[in-house]
Amino acid sequence: MIVAGYEMEKDQISARLARIEGQVRGIARMVDEDRYCIEVLDQVSAVTKALQQVAIGLVHEHLAHCVTDAVAGGGPSGAEKIDEAAEAIARLVRS
Amino acid sequence: MIVAGYEMEKDQISARLARIEGQVRGIARMVDEDRYCIEVLDQVSAVTKALQQVAIGLVHEHLAHCVTDAVAGGGPSGAEKIDEAAEAIARLVRS
Amino acid sequence: MIVAGYEMEKDQISARLARIEGQVRGIARMVDEDRYCIEVLDQVSAVTKALQQVAIGLVHEHLAHCVTDAVAGGGPSGAEKIDEAAEAIARLVRS
Amino acid sequence: MIVAGYEMEKDQISARLARIEGQVRGIARMVDEDRYCIEVLDQVSAVTKALQQVAIGLVHEHLAHCVTDAVAGGGPSGAEKIDEAAEAIARLVRS
Repeated sequence: MIVAGYEMEKDQISARLARIEGQVRGIARMVDEDRYCIEVLDQVSAVTKALQQVAIGLVHEHLAHCVTDAVAGGGPSGAEKIDEAAEAIARLVRS
Repeated sequence: MIVAGYEMEKDQISARLARIEGQVRGIARMVDEDRYCIEVLDQVSAVTKALQQVAIGLVHEHLAHCVTDAVAGGGPSGAEKIDEAAEAIARLVRS
Repeated sequence: MIVAGYEMEKDQISARLARIEGQVRGIARMVDEDRYCIEVLDQVSAVTKALQQVAIGLVHEHLAHCVTDAVAGGGPSGAEKIDEAAEAIARLVRS
Repeated sequence: MIVAGYEMEKDQISARLARIEGQVRGIARMVDEDRYCIEVLDQVSAVTKALQQVAIGLVHEHLAHCVTDAVAGGGPSGAEKIDEAAEAIARLVRS
């Protein structure tokens, strides 16, 4: 069921963001403790990957709900939603 | 009109790929001529960006045609196309 | 002076990480408040970029201090530090 | 030996660029043949990754030779080479 599926996804995204927030705090602590640059850098790379996973989850949710509803409803708003999604994906890929 | 739009997009994508092919050949030549590493590296960064633009064009085309048609047609194939597109976007973001 | 320069850089990195932590918390709040997916996604893209800036700052620091010291000291440890840095940069580029 | 190592690396980089050029030509052919968007997109993602590998090879070469020589030689040019390399790595990460 779509609504339940959405809620589950939303909880997953929230859980991942809470973990990422903790990881960023952990990196700040590593810098304070003068930990070796390469270790700090690898943690930053890991958090970047975790954020991209969240982004991909958001893209999937958006396509599966907002875009699908707009396209299934017919009319011009489907094409507008597709354009808007493609532009946001472009900003993600460039980031 | 969708078909005409598609053809134009396809031509644009082909034109960009032809240009990228030439740029890659140019980078190979720079390496042969022992050009300064940083100049070569910057060209590689530029071509990577150009390829990502092509990828974003393909994502847009795909959402605007294949995915839109599947979703508008109703049935389970819309959701399948969405999943497939999200997975390909994930591979792109991770690349 | 190198030591002072390092301290300043470290403070800058810490300040950026604190800001990023707040941004991640802000994204979690946006998800809780059911804000529009595209807005949330754009914030994730922005934080990804901010993290990459931190990563680049760390790479610069590392090259300017640890790697420079090892190379200037002579011996095999310079080459080892270069290899280690290149591998960490590779993990960053792939993230 | 450094010089021999460099030559080998250079040959490897050239070989990879020749392969990438062929892959880009292959993608152009896939577009001409109206191959499925997702297949084309995955090839673009694969070539992007291959280009990043070349970029990482160039970064490694540059650090191991130009930067190492400048740093080992003493004087201000070591720090300048480090700054220049960090800026090029930043352009790569952002691409």
